[in-house]
Amino acid sequence: MAASAFLPELGTQVVVPVASAVGIAFAVLQWVLVSKVKISPEPRRADGSSAGKSGAGASEYLIEEEEGLNEHNVVVKCAEIQNAISEGATSFLFTEYKYVGLFMGIFAVLIFLFLGSVESFSTKSQPCHYSKGKTCKPALANAIFSTIAFVLGAVTSLVSGFLGMKIATYANARTTLEARKGVGKAFITAFRSGAVMGFLLASSGLFVLFIAINLFGIYYGDDWEGLYEAITGYGLGGSSMALFGRVGGGIYTKAADVGADLVGKVERNIPEDDPRNPAVIADNVGDNVGDIAGMGSDLFGSYAESSCAALVVASISSFGINHEFTPMLYPLLISSVGIIACLITTLFATDFFEIKAVDEIEPALKKQLIISTAVMTVGIALVSWLGLPYTFTIYNFGVQKTVYNWQLFLCVAVGLWAGLVIGFVTEYYTSNAYSPVQDVADSCRTGAATNVIFGLALGYKSVIIPIFAIAFSIFLSFSLAAMYGVAVAALGMLSTIATGLAIDAYGPISDNAGGIAEMAGMSHRIRERTDALDAAGNTTAAIGKGFAIGSAALVSLALFGAFVSRAAISTVDVLSPKVFIGLIVGAMLPYWFSAMTMKSVGSAALKMVEEVRRQFNTIPGIMEGTTKPDYARCVKISTDASIKEMIPPGALVMLTPLIVGILFGVETLSGVLAGALVSGVQIAISASNTGGAWDNAKKYIEAGASEHARTLGPKGSDPHKAAVIGDTIGDPLKDTSGPSLNILIKLMAVESLVFAPFFATHGGILFKWL
Amino acid sequence: MAASAFLPELGTQVVVPVASAVGIAFAVLQWVLVSKVKISPEPRRADGSSAGKSGAGASEYLIEEEEGLNEHNVVVKCAEIQNAISEGATSFLFTEYKYVGLFMGIFAVLIFLFLGSVESFSTKSQPCHYSKGKTCKPALANAIFSTIAFVLGAVTSLVSGFLGMKIATYANARTTLEARKGVGKAFITAFRSGAVMGFLLASSGLFVLFIAINLFGIYYGDDWEGLYEAITGYGLGGSSMALFGRVGGGIYTKAADVGADLVGKVERNIPEDDPRNPAVIADNVGDNVGDIAGMGSDLFGSYAESSCAALVVASISSFGINHEFTPMLYPLLISSVGIIACLITTLFATDFFEIKAVDEIEPALKKQLIISTAVMTVGIALVSWLGLPYTFTIYNFGVQKTVYNWQLFLCVAVGLWAGLVIGFVTEYYTSNAYSPVQDVADSCRTGAATNVIFGLALGYKSVIIPIFAIAFSIFLSFSLAAMYGVAVAALGMLSTIATGLAIDAYGPISDNAGGIAEMAGMSHRIRERTDALDAAGNTTAAIGKGFAIGSAALVSLALFGAFVSRAAISTVDVLSPKVFIGLIVGAMLPYWFSAMTMKSVGSAALKMVEEVRRQFNTIPGIMEGTTKPDYARCVKISTDASIKEMIPPGALVMLTPLIVGILFGVETLSGVLAGALVSGVQIAISASNTGGAWDNAKKYIEAGASEHARTLGPKGSDPHKAAVIGDTIGDPLKDTSGPSLNILIKLMAVESLVFAPFFATHGGILFKWL
Repeated sequence: MAASAFLPELGTQVVVPVASAVGIAFAVLQWVLVSKVKISPEPRRADGSSAGKSGAGASEYLIEEEEGLNEHNVVVKCAEIQNAISEGATSFLFTEYKYVGLFMGIFAVLIFLFLGSVESFSTKSQPCHYSKGKTCKPALANAIFSTIAFVLGAVTSLVSGFLGMKIATYANARTTLEARKGVGKAFITAFRSGAVMGFLLASSGLFVLFIAINLFGIYYGDDWEGLYEAITGYGLGGSSMALFGRVGGGIYTKAADVGADLVGKVERNIPEDDPRNPAVIADNVGDNVGDIAGMGSDLFGSYAESSCAALVVASISSFGINHEFTPMLYPLLISSVGIIACLITTLFATDFFEIKAVDEIEPALKKQLIISTAVMTVGIALVSWLGLPYTFTIYNFGVQKTVYNWQLFLCVAVGLWAGLVIGFVTEYYTSNAYSPVQDVADSCRTGAATNVIFGLALGYKSVIIPIFAIAFSIFLSFSLAAMYGVAVAALGMLSTIATGLAIDAYGPISDNAGGIAEMAGMSHRIRERTDALDAAGNTTAAIGKGFAIGSAALVSLALFGAFVSRAAISTVDVLSPKVFIGLIVGAMLPYWFSAMTMKSVGSAALKMVEEVRRQFNTIPGIMEGTTKPDYARCVKISTDASIKEMIPPGALVMLTPLIVGILFGVETLSGVLAGALVSGVQIAISASNTGGAWDNAKKYIEAGASEHARTLGPKGSDPHKAAVIGDTIGDPLKDTSGPSLNILIKLMAVESLVFAPFFATHGGILFKWL
Repeated sequence: MAASAFLPELGTQVVVPVASAVGIAFAVLQWVLVSKVKISPEPRRADGSSAGKSGAGASEYLIEEEEGLNEHNVVVKCAEIQNAISEGATSFLFTEYKYVGLFMGIFAVLIFLFLGSVESFSTKSQPCHYSKGKTCKPALANAIFSTIAFVLGAVTSLVSGFLGMKIATYANARTTLEARKGVGKAFITAFRSGAVMGFLLASSGLFVLFIAINLFGIYYGDDWEGLYEAITGYGLGGSSMALFGRVGGGIYTKAADVGADLVGKVERNIPEDDPRNPAVIADNVGDNVGDIAGMGSDLFGSYAESSCAALVVASISSFGINHEFTPMLYPLLISSVGIIACLITTLFATDFFEIKAVDEIEPALKKQLIISTAVMTVGIALVSWLGLPYTFTIYNFGVQKTVYNWQLFLCVAVGLWAGLVIGFVTEYYTSNAYSPVQDVADSCRTGAATNVIFGLALGYKSVIIPIFAIAFSIFLSFSLAAMYGVAVAALGMLSTIATGLAIDAYGPISDNAGGIAEMAGMSHRIRERTDALDAAGNTTAAIGKGFAIGSAALVSLALFGAFVSRAAISTVDVLSPKVFIGLIVGAMLPYWFSAMTMKSVGSAALKMVEEVRRQFNTIPGIMEGTTKPDYARCVKISTDASIKEMIPPGALVMLTPLIVGILFGVETLSGVLAGALVSGVQIAISASNTGGAWDNAKKYIEAGASEHARTLGPKGSDPHKAAVIGDTIGDPLKDTSGPSLNILIKLMAVESLVFAPFFATHGGILFKWL
């Protein structure tokens, strides 16, 4: 088995926690920098303009002038609004977590019972599956540790989402206030806040996983097979919480958003985020619980799953069987280097360069993608050289396959670069700087119908290149290193997760900042600046979703491969009826799921519309701004609807693998997983890009930055009204259905993997009867 | 090989052509009955009311009174409009056929060259593949006869579409005129005309296939393997013409429809089909070239393909190897009995019962589905008992599987009944008699955005049960009789094709009848009657699409299975990278295809909008009705757009199997076929049901038949405007993208099957290089 890796075990034991610590420290540093923006009026400094000068002369580069720095009542208002949003978000998340906590408890018991029953809760050790001649820990231990890992993953996911929300609500008013000093300052505040979230999540996810592996290792000792199988519970826990976060949060935010827009913008003709709109607080709370907390949980889940998939496959390769610690932890080393690479990348946005004008925002964010990918490529090469032996073998469905370290480097790199391609394609199709979105905007000339037709067509078309990119990565990594290659390709795509999350979180923070500016009655110019931040944010949100979906496809395939290995299936033959019916039904599941979530948003939005209308009609003085609307009732409607409506789609995803596995067995389940994967990834990409494009087509008309855009505007013109309709339709597509779908495909795969021994032993009872 | 079938070869040689002849005779009879409605004014009979009495007292049952029978100028106008529509449709079809004829020629040469090259154009006989020890005809013969079969299928398909169009344009004005006598008379005229088309197509398709088999048999003699392989060209020819028919016709009809609606209904506030609208003739022509000619070619293609799939699989079973003629032609016997069963069924609609009121139309059409299915079940039992030996063996990817005749009966029956289930589910989701469409209509209260969200959700949801029905049929038939089972299940679903086509064609005929009534300036009450016919027609059109898609799924799978056998692949393992990348790219193709067709409709509609606006603005007197608009220019815009725009999606479908097969080989191609199948069927169902639901939600509001509907109306109210937007968006979904997708999945499969020997010999050059 050739030479071992350069990096000794001790080195790995140091590098991983140190990288985590550096990431966390960097997050704290960014947080300190953000917290320097005070959101309480500062009596000591009456001359607000000095705040601008504190930037060491930087402000002279800003094209926009400072304004409104002296209006202290604005600061007070901002603080008030921020509080209201933060309270609403916290209260919703606690309610949500109460329910998902209950679910988590039940599911933890299920995991224990199902996995324990594989060998009838026997406490005797068993001969190993792959390491011939050795004994492995009993199935009962697997049941116990899988359950613990599940709870750990779930709790980490919840905490990640919660912290992300706290950071975002901490940052939004600060971004608004900085917007008074210019777009560059506001950008840095929003971006730094995103970075706090990105680094905190990436580092703590890595750290918890590392600790868990070491602690579990104390019991498991030499049984690495069992150890890493149990660790997969971590991925399941992370992803199942992400499901509820995405679905619940997605319904919350879009019910509020759609409801607020339908009455406010369309019927009453008041601007977005107008404080007279009773649903406005719910709308802003939604951004934080849906886009921030939901997305945080989601990407954490992807990260946890891809690591687990890689680890479980590695455990039955030569690393695992020969107990080579450093190569075994190669996935964690990749993530460690990723944190450092992203740290360097972040400095390019916050310190090395400065945003001086509105049209520099998107390029700055784009540069983040390119720089992080380039730096990370070097990082991967380094890790692959130091952390892997020159040659090793990988388990490939029954046969061992020899792999060289440079081949594994190619696997990780192809995933990383495919992510970049997906990011750029997404940007091309959703940014209003390019012709696709401009065409959609242009089609608003003939009304909402053509806008919708063009938008749907755009979404369908935007699937082509990402799918080719994913297919190419899969082919290359699969051919070079079987399922291990696919798993590390997914890790490669997610290795720049800290930067991805930072630019992703930047979007909703800017969105909220704009909302706060409007609600606090700040000047039109400040609102223009936050709008510019927000338009870039829409694109980055779409890019983030592109990453999430692309990585989900790779992760699910890797998990699927791991499941197949663990369930001891040697082929998944489409020409077997058991597999084929799984395939076609699996391809249907994303539609079923989307039907549920879209309908949920629709119904909840209708309730919201009724409440908002009722308030406008029965509370005198709302439209004049003399009476405050009853924000709390709208918050309650969104909360109740999302809690109630997240259960059926959640149940569909969580129960399908169990029902199929138990009744139809592992072959049909394989079909279901493959079907859901290949079909779901298409809908997810097209839904999120269609929605992003509609949103930016509307913004394109509103901004009126080109001759063409001005012929379509201004706000309130017929084309603009048509664009608003498209935007509203896109809301549930891009923020509820689309992003939840990538969880659907990953979660079903990881759940199947965790329960694989149970299905292999007790599953398929329907076919056994027949 | 057990006992042979009861029915001797001679019996089969008589039964099939006789059934075809009976079907054709019945079609002619229906045509004669329709032609009794005169569309030239009858000078001899000034008292128009006598026309009503000629119905042998039937008119007294009609709730609605006769009206407008004396207005002879109306008859003249109707005749004129009919002529204009018929001329427009004929001219378009001739233009279209010129282009597809060119394509057909090129493709025929390709088939000959590719298949001939398999054995380097050698004229020597070869040892057979499956009948060991026998010699079979050379590959060159296969190339020649496949090419002939291809041309035969293509020509039959074109003639089918053309005849269908001729019949429909012959019937539409007659339906309008009969509507003066009451809804029952109009219904019978429209339905009889549909029956002419249904029986003519089903019978001639069967007859041509039967003749081809017998003629080819003269050369092939004992080599049934080669004979039936060559016959698959018939399916390819039928389906490739159907592709262009559906896509070209679909773009034509929807560009005109959307363009006409956007200016006429939305901007100018004039009713649908108003003669002042310059696009009105193009719109009505579109119904005939898209919905009628396109659909006729499509269903003929499905029928030809499922027969070919069954035959080619049967040729390598014990029937083929032992030369048992009757069981070998079991697929044709099923279709023969189907014609008779449908004939009986038709009498229930036209003779045994009579429609007396508007609300009896939908139940009458529904009864057609139930009766035909019930009668056909008996027919299948009979054919399975008489036409099959008690037991026989079927080729199942390398092994022989023993099958009983009752098992094959179950295969056909499960397909037939799954079709009924799909039909009913489609009806439930698209008819405005049930809550799903009513909910969509209700969501128009809050505007177009919620209408679209609810409509999309409805479409997604409507996929669930049909997919389970398809999965169940596949599982049962696959388990009982391998791919032969799946092929005959598809045939079972299509065995009532004559009735299916009749109720399907009824829709556009009624739609046209309404258009003619409006254009001829007939009274409001007559328009109400034709609207009622049309609303039922929307639902039946959706049901027809449901059948087309369901059968396409089964047919494609059977063709896929035949392809795999012919390409000598033994497993299609999802866990092989070559297959998996095919699967995910295949699942993407329907999106790519839909993006193209939707965008084409959108762009063509924009051109149409400009032209219609130009005419309204520059031709004085159009709005007053004193000047005739320039209909011909709108017809030309639709024609040019559809001819130009049908090429890219057509090329995508036709070239994909060739490119993938040649570059990547048969395994990747298998993945592509499976992926396109499982993904395409979902989009096709959801697109066609979403569109149908929007159309009927709009009609529900317009008709105002219930308390609830009246709160949403009347025409011109805000909810109605929102409903019109939904209807417009649904147009390309339900009439262009959706129905074309089922051709995509079938056509790629049949093309792969025809070229299988070539791909197996010369394909996969990219992987051979690497």
